[in-house]
Amino acid sequence: MNLIEQLQQIVGANGVLTGDDVRSRPNHSWGRGECPAMAIVRPRTTEEVSRIMALCHAQEQRVVPWGGLTGLVDGITCEAGDLVLSMERMQNIEHCEPDAGTLRVQAGAVLQSVQDAAAEAGWQFAVDLGGRGSAQIGGLVATNAGGNAVVRYGMMREQVLGLEVVLADGRVMSSLNEVLKNNAGYDMKQLFIGSEGTLGIVTRAVLRLRPAANARQTAFLGMNSFDDVAALLRHLQSHLEGKLSSFEVMWANHYRFMVEELATHQTFLPVDYPYYVLVESEGQFPDREEALFTSVLGELMEEGTIADAVIAQSGQQAEQLWAMRDDVASLIEAMAPMAAFDISLPLRDMQTYVAAMEQGLAKRLPEARVVVFGHLGDGNIHLVVGNIPDHKAVEEVVYGELRNLGGSISAEHGIGLEKRDYLAYSKGEIEIDLMRTLKHALDPKGILNPGKVISA
Amino acid sequence: MNLIEQLQQIVGANGVLTGDDVRSRPNHSWGRGECPAMAIVRPRTTEEVSRIMALCHAQEQRVVPWGGLTGLVDGITCEAGDLVLSMERMQNIEHCEPDAGTLRVQAGAVLQSVQDAAAEAGWQFAVDLGGRGSAQIGGLVATNAGGNAVVRYGMMREQVLGLEVVLADGRVMSSLNEVLKNNAGYDMKQLFIGSEGTLGIVTRAVLRLRPAANARQTAFLGMNSFDDVAALLRHLQSHLEGKLSSFEVMWANHYRFMVEELATHQTFLPVDYPYYVLVESEGQFPDREEALFTSVLGELMEEGTIADAVIAQSGQQAEQLWAMRDDVASLIEAMAPMAAFDISLPLRDMQTYVAAMEQGLAKRLPEARVVVFGHLGDGNIHLVVGNIPDHKAVEEVVYGELRNLGGSISAEHGIGLEKRDYLAYSKGEIEIDLMRTLKHALDPKGILNPGKVISA
Ligand SMILES: Cc1cc2nc3c(=O)[nH]c(=O)nc-3n(C[C@H](O)[C@H](O)[C@H](O)COP(=O)(O)OP(=O)(O)OC[C@H]3O[C@@H](n4cnc5c(N)ncnc54)[C@H](O)[C@@H]3O)c2cc1C
Ligand SMILES: Cc1cc2nc3c(=O)[nH]c(=O)nc-3n(C[C@H](O)[C@H](O)[C@H](O)COP(=O)(O)OP(=O)(O)OC[C@H]3O[C@@H](n4cnc5c(N)ncnc54)[C@H](O)[C@@H]3O)c2cc1C
Repeated sequence: MNLIEQLQQIVGANGVLTGDDVRSRPNHSWGRGECPAMAIVRPRTTEEVSRIMALCHAQEQRVVPWGGLTGLVDGITCEAGDLVLSMERMQNIEHCEPDAGTLRVQAGAVLQSVQDAAAEAGWQFAVDLGGRGSAQIGGLVATNAGGNAVVRYGMMREQVLGLEVVLADGRVMSSLNEVLKNNAGYDMKQLFIGSEGTLGIVTRAVLRLRPAANARQTAFLGMNSFDDVAALLRHLQSHLEGKLSSFEVMWANHYRFMVEELATHQTFLPVDYPYYVLVESEGQFPDREEALFTSVLGELMEEGTIADAVIAQSGQQAEQLWAMRDDVASLIEAMAPMAAFDISLPLRDMQTYVAAMEQGLAKRLPEARVVVFGHLGDGNIHLVVGNIPDHKAVEEVVYGELRNLGGSISAEHGIGLEKRDYLAYSKGEIEIDLMRTLKHALDPKGILNPGKVISA
Repeated sequence: MNLIEQLQQIVGANGVLTGDDVRSRPNHSWGRGECPAMAIVRPRTTEEVSRIMALCHAQEQRVVPWGGLTGLVDGITCEAGDLVLSMERMQNIEHCEPDAGTLRVQAGAVLQSVQDAAAEAGWQFAVDLGGRGSAQIGGLVATNAGGNAVVRYGMMREQVLGLEVVLADGRVMSSLNEVLKNNAGYDMKQLFIGSEGTLGIVTRAVLRLRPAANARQTAFLGMNSFDDVAALLRHLQSHLEGKLSSFEVMWANHYRFMVEELATHQTFLPVDYPYYVLVESEGQFPDREEALFTSVLGELMEEGTIADAVIAQSGQQAEQLWAMRDDVASLIEAMAPMAAFDISLPLRDMQTYVAAMEQGLAKRLPEARVVVFGHLGDGNIHLVVGNIPDHKAVEEVVYGELRNLGGSISAEHGIGLEKRDYLAYSKGEIEIDLMRTLKHALDPKGILNPGKVISA
């Protein structure tokens, strides 16, 4: 029996795709390319995943785990001969504890469906991002995804209580912990969070839910300087009493692009401020929330920290504001050929960095165009550099300046294949050695998502 | 040159203690016993730690890391011939970023001094516990300590942005990340948090600070049933809007012990409720905070969820309430010979568990006496079982009943030597195998805190 037949024995004929059914799937971020893998295997249970991995381990077959394919760093890219292990048939929302606020799901469960299940139980799931309609819990865990509410609730790591993981050799590490505190031995799940499919296949997770918010306030602010933006962040972090749930900054070039060039978005504020901030707070009592929010913002306007402001008067208006911030797809499309970056650095260095990066680009690639925005509450900015002849030249400028300031080449998207060669810009030699030690200890044959994150 | 002389060359004559200077130090929790180690080496810098470990690695010398010795699971216990590596001369608070709210310290820095430095910079350090005058940052990291404010701010893991760790062979893994988000490769620091000195020596940390609280509300509540306690927790988690910072429960046996037997503490409420809860919220605006707190508690009193309440009218009164909760030392002393436990389990099983555990003890050790209290907001309770003839018999009852319900034998204190033989009660076989794989990969000669957490 060949491998395909053996896989069919495990998952049924239906569970294995080959030929055009594989070629019609993408090989790169944003749905680009054509998957060259030998087959796509689609298990339905942990046990099937375990048997698949045991088989692949015995035969030294390379395996590329697939979630919802919304990842942005070519973490799902295959070579000919690779086997894709797709979680698309493991979408069950298995169990909810409405009193405790925990949810156990299969790793293929889609973010949106998890958010809905949480809401139905009277809670919220606190990771949210543009790819919510496709991104899976397993993919979010594997990339330690961030998103729009990290400033309040933390990244994916902080929403995971327990994990079940199938190891490279097919053993099942079941650690479906439900309690908030568990110091009984090393917390092995931490290893797999953010490991981008290179250390194990996430098959199940116990998620921590957060109290649903009954009152939300949203505002869009025009700012005169970056120092004002930093002061605003600091002030809201304390004066909104931990209820600040988003702090998204748009540089003028981003806002202008959205309202002047796309013209699908409304002009909420004049286009001549250098910075704009979308802030949101989440509370329980609509009246109290509005009173606090408007009084805190009002004071900052009076003293001049905030230059201009629109406070959303309805859920619909808030949605329009978010639609503009989240319309990354239009931006990416319009800027092609482009390169997108997701970096973080201390706030104190942010201005220096952006100026140096812009100068560097102007010198090296005068035709290029930069748009800057991001989850600034987390020190995280996204850069989209459009109209570029050459990826490598852009990367050298963007990462080169970052390295000098000790920033991270990946705040939330991960390393995948795309950023692998720049890993040493953000991590020391010993730390990378240790990553290799770990990879070797957990996947001695190097079959799990080979070549991603670190080279072999 | 013998080892002692070689160590003296690294840290100076003053840096190495031998003989009575070693014997006068403890070998067990609560300062008990006499340290049998060959010497205590006291480096001042990371470089010295690195040279010490390189030396010990070459000679296969066993090393036991010491922090402030407040740990409660015999994590610092030595055998004759062991070398203690004490962080007591690495107490520097190195650098504060007052705008960003980050603090870089040497691992020997004492919790209290870190709290003070944070306060001076206008922030707070959010881990707090009874051992604050001695416990060190390195010890808190190594045990992933919890404490009184986990329900709001998380455990030590969530306060650590960056770590510097000296590996078993003396290599220095420097990962002094300052940013909130960094997904550039595996997050190696997670490995060392909670590893109890068995995988590396923590030498430095970058800590995340939180906005200081300007308004605090504290109340002590009498409750008629455990269901009411659970309903109260759920209600406060949502209705105090994320500002609930402590939720400490005392079973009646604990409260009575404190006010009737110790008599050093004031009787705040009648002694005939089955449960008492100490709750605290932290905000920014004293008036707003008081209004919210009293209105939320008031409603719960009216509807009968809360049977009785004292709201602290001053900081001093709040301190008296906390003094009673934190007076673990008196309890431990009075209950001797005793065994103390630190377990967690889902709230839904808590009552069943406590009843089964009490019955089990009554049957097996009729003389024994149990007191129950804990960080119930985190699903974490402490049991102190006094007047016992035999540790092992108590452990079998306490852990045996827990195993049946899928709880954790250690919510926050760790495993050390004391709970090692029960690890399999809370972790599966594959997970323990994986722990061993990790230990072997990072410390192939088994010189770092040998025998702690997992047996060789
Ligand atoms: C419009 C849009 C907005 C986005 N916004 C954000 C944002 O704000 N913040 C943010 O952090 N990210 C954002 N992302 C990217 C984000 O990383 C992904 O959306 C998500 O985390 C990946 O989930 P996925 O299921 O699509 O994984 P995939 O893309 O399928 O895979 C991602 C990686 O995880 C691995 N993987 C997937 N599933 C498993 C599994 N079960 N076990 C082991 N490994 C697995 C893959 O091998 C790959 O390396 C955005 C993406 C889009 C398209
Ligand atoms: C009164 C009191 C109240 C307490 N309350 C709580 C509580 O509410 N919550 C809670 O979680 N804990 C509590 N504890 C216990 C808590 O675990 C410790 O206080 C603290 O985490 C240990 O710090 P330490 O510096 O004293 O470490 P030690 O006791 O010296 O060591 C603890 C462990 O860490 C290792 N270690 C120490 N330093 C390092 C280092 N630099 N690198 C590597 N390994 C190291 C040791 O080898 C040992 O295994 C309490 C203790 C006391 C005495």
